[in-house]
Amino acid sequence: MQIESNRLDRNGLLRDESLFHVANGYIGMRGNFEEGYPAGFQTIRGTYINAFYDLENIHYGEKFKGFPETKQKILNIFDTQSVEIFVEGERFSLFEGEILSFRRVLRMDRGYAEREIHWRSKKGIELRLSFRRMASFVLLPLIIMEITVCPINFSGEIAIRSTQSGNVMNFFDNSDPRVASVSEKNLFLEACSNLKGGISLITARAARSGLRVAAAVQHRFSKEGEVSHQFGKEGAMTVYTGRVAAGEKVTLEKYCVFCDSRRYEDCRSSAISIINEALERPASYWYETQKRYLDQFWLRAKVSIEGDADVQEALNYNSYQLLQSAGRDRFSNIAAKGLSGEGYEGHYFWDTEIYIFPFFLLTDPAQAKNLLDFRYACLDKARSHARLLGHQKGALYPWRTITGDECSPYFPSGSAQYHINGAIAYAFISYYLATGDRGFMEEKGAEVVFETARLWLDAGHFDKAGLFRIDCVTGPDEYTCIVNNNYYTNAMAKYNLEWAVKLYFLLEEEGRISEVRDKIKLDDGELLQFRRAGEAMLLPYDEELKINAQDDTFLRKKVWDFANTPAEKYPLLLHYHPLHIYRHQVCKQADTVLAHYLLEEYAEPLTIKNSYCYYEGITTHDSSLSSCIFGIMAAKTGDLKKSYKYFMETVRMDLDDLHNNTKDGIHTANMGGTYMAVVFGFAGLRIKADGLHFSPRLPQEWLAYSFDIHFRGRRIKVKMGQDGSRFKLLEGEALTIFVDGKAQVVES
Amino acid sequence: MQIESNRLDRNGLLRDESLFHVANGYIGMRGNFEEGYPAGFQTIRGTYINAFYDLENIHYGEKFKGFPETKQKILNIFDTQSVEIFVEGERFSLFEGEILSFRRVLRMDRGYAEREIHWRSKKGIELRLSFRRMASFVLLPLIIMEITVCPINFSGEIAIRSTQSGNVMNFFDNSDPRVASVSEKNLFLEACSNLKGGISLITARAARSGLRVAAAVQHRFSKEGEVSHQFGKEGAMTVYTGRVAAGEKVTLEKYCVFCDSRRYEDCRSSAISIINEALERPASYWYETQKRYLDQFWLRAKVSIEGDADVQEALNYNSYQLLQSAGRDRFSNIAAKGLSGEGYEGHYFWDTEIYIFPFFLLTDPAQAKNLLDFRYACLDKARSHARLLGHQKGALYPWRTITGDECSPYFPSGSAQYHINGAIAYAFISYYLATGDRGFMEEKGAEVVFETARLWLDAGHFDKAGLFRIDCVTGPDEYTCIVNNNYYTNAMAKYNLEWAVKLYFLLEEEGRISEVRDKIKLDDGELLQFRRAGEAMLLPYDEELKINAQDDTFLRKKVWDFANTPAEKYPLLLHYHPLHIYRHQVCKQADTVLAHYLLEEYAEPLTIKNSYCYYEGITTHDSSLSSCIFGIMAAKTGDLKKSYKYFMETVRMDLDDLHNNTKDGIHTANMGGTYMAVVFGFAGLRIKADGLHFSPRLPQEWLAYSFDIHFRGRRIKVKMGQDGSRFKLLEGEALTIFVDGKAQVVES
Repeated sequence: MQIESNRLDRNGLLRDESLFHVANGYIGMRGNFEEGYPAGFQTIRGTYINAFYDLENIHYGEKFKGFPETKQKILNIFDTQSVEIFVEGERFSLFEGEILSFRRVLRMDRGYAEREIHWRSKKGIELRLSFRRMASFVLLPLIIMEITVCPINFSGEIAIRSTQSGNVMNFFDNSDPRVASVSEKNLFLEACSNLKGGISLITARAARSGLRVAAAVQHRFSKEGEVSHQFGKEGAMTVYTGRVAAGEKVTLEKYCVFCDSRRYEDCRSSAISIINEALERPASYWYETQKRYLDQFWLRAKVSIEGDADVQEALNYNSYQLLQSAGRDRFSNIAAKGLSGEGYEGHYFWDTEIYIFPFFLLTDPAQAKNLLDFRYACLDKARSHARLLGHQKGALYPWRTITGDECSPYFPSGSAQYHINGAIAYAFISYYLATGDRGFMEEKGAEVVFETARLWLDAGHFDKAGLFRIDCVTGPDEYTCIVNNNYYTNAMAKYNLEWAVKLYFLLEEEGRISEVRDKIKLDDGELLQFRRAGEAMLLPYDEELKINAQDDTFLRKKVWDFANTPAEKYPLLLHYHPLHIYRHQVCKQADTVLAHYLLEEYAEPLTIKNSYCYYEGITTHDSSLSSCIFGIMAAKTGDLKKSYKYFMETVRMDLDDLHNNTKDGIHTANMGGTYMAVVFGFAGLRIKADGLHFSPRLPQEWLAYSFDIHFRGRRIKVKMGQDGSRFKLLEGEALTIFVDGKAQVVES
Repeated sequence: MQIESNRLDRNGLLRDESLFHVANGYIGMRGNFEEGYPAGFQTIRGTYINAFYDLENIHYGEKFKGFPETKQKILNIFDTQSVEIFVEGERFSLFEGEILSFRRVLRMDRGYAEREIHWRSKKGIELRLSFRRMASFVLLPLIIMEITVCPINFSGEIAIRSTQSGNVMNFFDNSDPRVASVSEKNLFLEACSNLKGGISLITARAARSGLRVAAAVQHRFSKEGEVSHQFGKEGAMTVYTGRVAAGEKVTLEKYCVFCDSRRYEDCRSSAISIINEALERPASYWYETQKRYLDQFWLRAKVSIEGDADVQEALNYNSYQLLQSAGRDRFSNIAAKGLSGEGYEGHYFWDTEIYIFPFFLLTDPAQAKNLLDFRYACLDKARSHARLLGHQKGALYPWRTITGDECSPYFPSGSAQYHINGAIAYAFISYYLATGDRGFMEEKGAEVVFETARLWLDAGHFDKAGLFRIDCVTGPDEYTCIVNNNYYTNAMAKYNLEWAVKLYFLLEEEGRISEVRDKIKLDDGELLQFRRAGEAMLLPYDEELKINAQDDTFLRKKVWDFANTPAEKYPLLLHYHPLHIYRHQVCKQADTVLAHYLLEEYAEPLTIKNSYCYYEGITTHDSSLSSCIFGIMAAKTGDLKKSYKYFMETVRMDLDDLHNNTKDGIHTANMGGTYMAVVFGFAGLRIKADGLHFSPRLPQEWLAYSFDIHFRGRRIKVKMGQDGSRFKLLEGEALTIFVDGKAQVVES
């Protein structure tokens, strides 16, 4: 259960920084080399705390009412990675001398990343080195780095220079709209001090958010030597000098503890007490707890594939990355790039609810609930956001955010994507369906579902024919912006509205409705309107093509000239003016097809199939959120070959850097999508009000696959082999499920 | 023939700076007080050369392909206005002491602005002063300022301090999207020197465009005194000191000549030679030539109203401002604010072609041709712009520009307004219809009409039913952006395409087609496509309402809640998020109604009437381009009362500062619109292929109105009184015109 690389790819350094990053949902550290690269090699040297941000002004050539003035961006905090090694005055670098062996590994069963190197310097000195680092899942603020140096063919002086620098900035790239475009110093060092026992403590403050962060670092050297500490304006430095004999090892354990002022009232004191707590135990203790944590994780989350090691590796990798990425508190969620890079500036999108939430819902419902808690904590801000966009009632979640404030500077493919409201409501409802947790719905879920339903009511209107229309929104397909009656949006709104009514009566029946009803002043008239709007929702359908139209006029547009679009012109958004793209029938990603996956009951099977075929012909999959959904729907339509093809395009997207931008971070939504492709695609799972529905199919390339899911207090093993499907109850009470429409009781 | 103000309005200083500016199409100087205002009073102290610009970066929160990186903005150049007057050590200021009389006047018959003041200082010294300034229509680089000081109740020392400062910046206001939002120094002084004879010469350079400008200034004092010249980093200063007896006048004539490097290869030398040329004559000579120029102008351009002096004054004012605003060379055009202020940054829009061009076409066809020459000069840039927006062929004029480069930072209500192409083609065609000038069409007009027609062909497409559709454009109504088949756009495109075909055959018949055909490689297949697309153009029509729909889906949207929108929430764009506005049926300005005015042959009279009524109910007229068109169409539909009401809302828009932003400059398009309201509204003129059509009506508030028009080498007087209409040929051959559909020969 590991990812391995056996040679240094100098052209893939940035990519590998992302691939080998370590994170635990709270803190993430990119896989930069401790010793750095020489000049001329680009690096994104970064350490990030989930949801630790600063503000930046958004500049507009023309600014209109309601445009956000500032945006949040995740900050690159202290660089505690840097460790330089000198042997007899020669500086260790993989870019000089000779690499005799190189092995880089991400141990997903044990929860650390490691580099093992056999190196010969220019002058002929040979060293064995290993660099290991772990972000503890058990003590979230803790990262342990472990560096071992062993001279092979000499005895002499070894110097190790370890720094904690506050002189850091975020990466920027002016040419790519998906990456920050402004270079600005945000983090300012406040203090840097040496505590008794040799702990260096640095604190810094973000310029505009005022957030503070403290890092406490302690060094433990396995061999006696001279250790000195220096402090300066940019941070702290610890220098070790000692003599080592050939074959003798020197190991540095560098404990780094990061506390921010969002979670810790006094982040400085907390960092001190937590590092002291950590230092009470040897590193081995933390490795052991890490392993135990991961044993539990894999027990719940492992998807097993028989007959394809590459896929197995990738699925493991993807699940592991979701674990690394997911925030565990009400301050944080799952950024588009997790904690692996700065792409999309650490923002949370609908990616969480539609692409990643199902993984946690089925493998770790408590963590799924954490993700919903975050959205609930942002509900008030969503209410304010709705007012800013002109709505009298309801809540409108921001398109991209860290704390709940809208951070999208381009509203046509930003704030106009109202469907995020539907995604969040859908996730709350899914949580309820999969857990039956009415307490949570009473406490939080219902309020979110009602407030999002209210927004639809305010945004849309009944036309003369009595149909409910929602104008001027943007659906998931960002290649078609500001349209009327986007099928996906309307379908999600319909579901949201219908469930607002269902939930109301469910809670009312149990006497649980009065608190939320009074709190948000929900009246019967409104409830009736929810019902009417849900029932009357316009879901565009084209009689001729017998498909659902993406919006009112999409199918009347000119079809993109794919034949004359060379491969290097993709992704289109980097090569064509948005208006030119909007003018054509061309989809960046699954839109109507995604609605058909999430809400299959709203369309006839034939319409679903026709739509899948039609949209497949005009979808570029320029978004990483696309192929997984097409894969699921290929399976749904019975085309397992195609489904497998899509799956294979997604499952190794980051490992093989298929989108050429893994350097900016991993694609967490796509990773969730690969899990979905197995569970909802091949196994055909759907979670409905009457329970679990499966239509398991086995790609012919595999011998079997299996996974466990959690459902209403049960754990169920699902296995699909060449001899068909088997369902086994591992925990909980017997349950009736539906397999290819037939009821079946699952027992232990 | 003058505009007068008899008291100092301290709250209207900025407005009056615009209203009393002097300009001649090349240079404009705001009506700032020579002596300045005290601290605490805002001023936009500005002098502008038409099309003299610098570049500024456009910042985008998210930047996409094809977004302009920079924009041009007209520069505030040297301040040569400043003249301070000291009497016995006391500084003259209208904000101290006592104003015994004050009169400010814009002499539109003589072409200058003047202030006449009787003032008593704090210490009791009384002065009479006059400040006169003129931008010569005869020698465009010349501005003459004439300042006279006459002590009433004392004899003593007078000092006059006159400066030419290069320390200038543009005005900015971060809160208004219609005004520049960035404060940046653009103009840098290069040299400042004193030439023999006392001419001060300053030159400066725009930081990024590299354009240079020179100003030569000479002072002539009517009375001997001590004159000294000083030069510094910021410019030059001339100080006069002399003794004056009570009742004795001192007059300063300040000749200012401005030459820029766009028109003058060596702007420094040109400024010297032009000021020397100017100085050869006394000021009286230049006033005399100015008067003669204006006599000619008013002979051609006067619209006479009997029975309403206020309207007469305003119509005079508006025509005069159009004269002051219109560029006379291929470098310049008519900015949205003329040369009176910095609103819209000196950019040219479709305002010229649709709202102002008709005034010049009918009063001064040679000047109308100048305006077309400018667009022809920008044709190559329009071709490049079309490529940038994704079009394989044709030319797309930029939405706002100085030199032909797109300067709009917000494409949904910027570059997406493809209809500017239609407006420009329409103007060329109108010019041809009104002048019969085939030589110009052969040389320039046809190329523009063909290239704009090509753009429509590329932007639109034939649907399955054979209709030609144009998707994803924005019509004139900026409250509804990025729509399909905007009626106005499609109608203008249809006209453009049809005329491309007509022009082709017209020129072919005369053997004049080959040069342009070969130059742009126009083939028969394309011509056929022009014809097919023109014929098959979709013009949305709503069967139920029996109106033309503004676009494919406009009429399905929710109608704006006007009842609950308080007056202070207008203009809506300053108070609501664009998306909220776009989502509703609400128009900023005439859109379909404008198409019905320009192209009445494309709709049935009943449809036109119904549409007028429908759109009137949902139009806010938040744009100053709106009311004049509704006024014209009210007349067309027979509602003369309403027409008059609209007319009255527009005719004094700037004089009465009805939009509260005259401070940023005059509304040139609206001024053109008031001329149109009389000529095309009340007199019902339409210029068609078969000649002039009138339907003259007289508002009951007037006794009569009259105006002259130029048409195909003729000058025709049109008079409408209570006894009906009369048409008289003043110049040229007899002509058949149509009055209320009946042919009538106009003879001298």
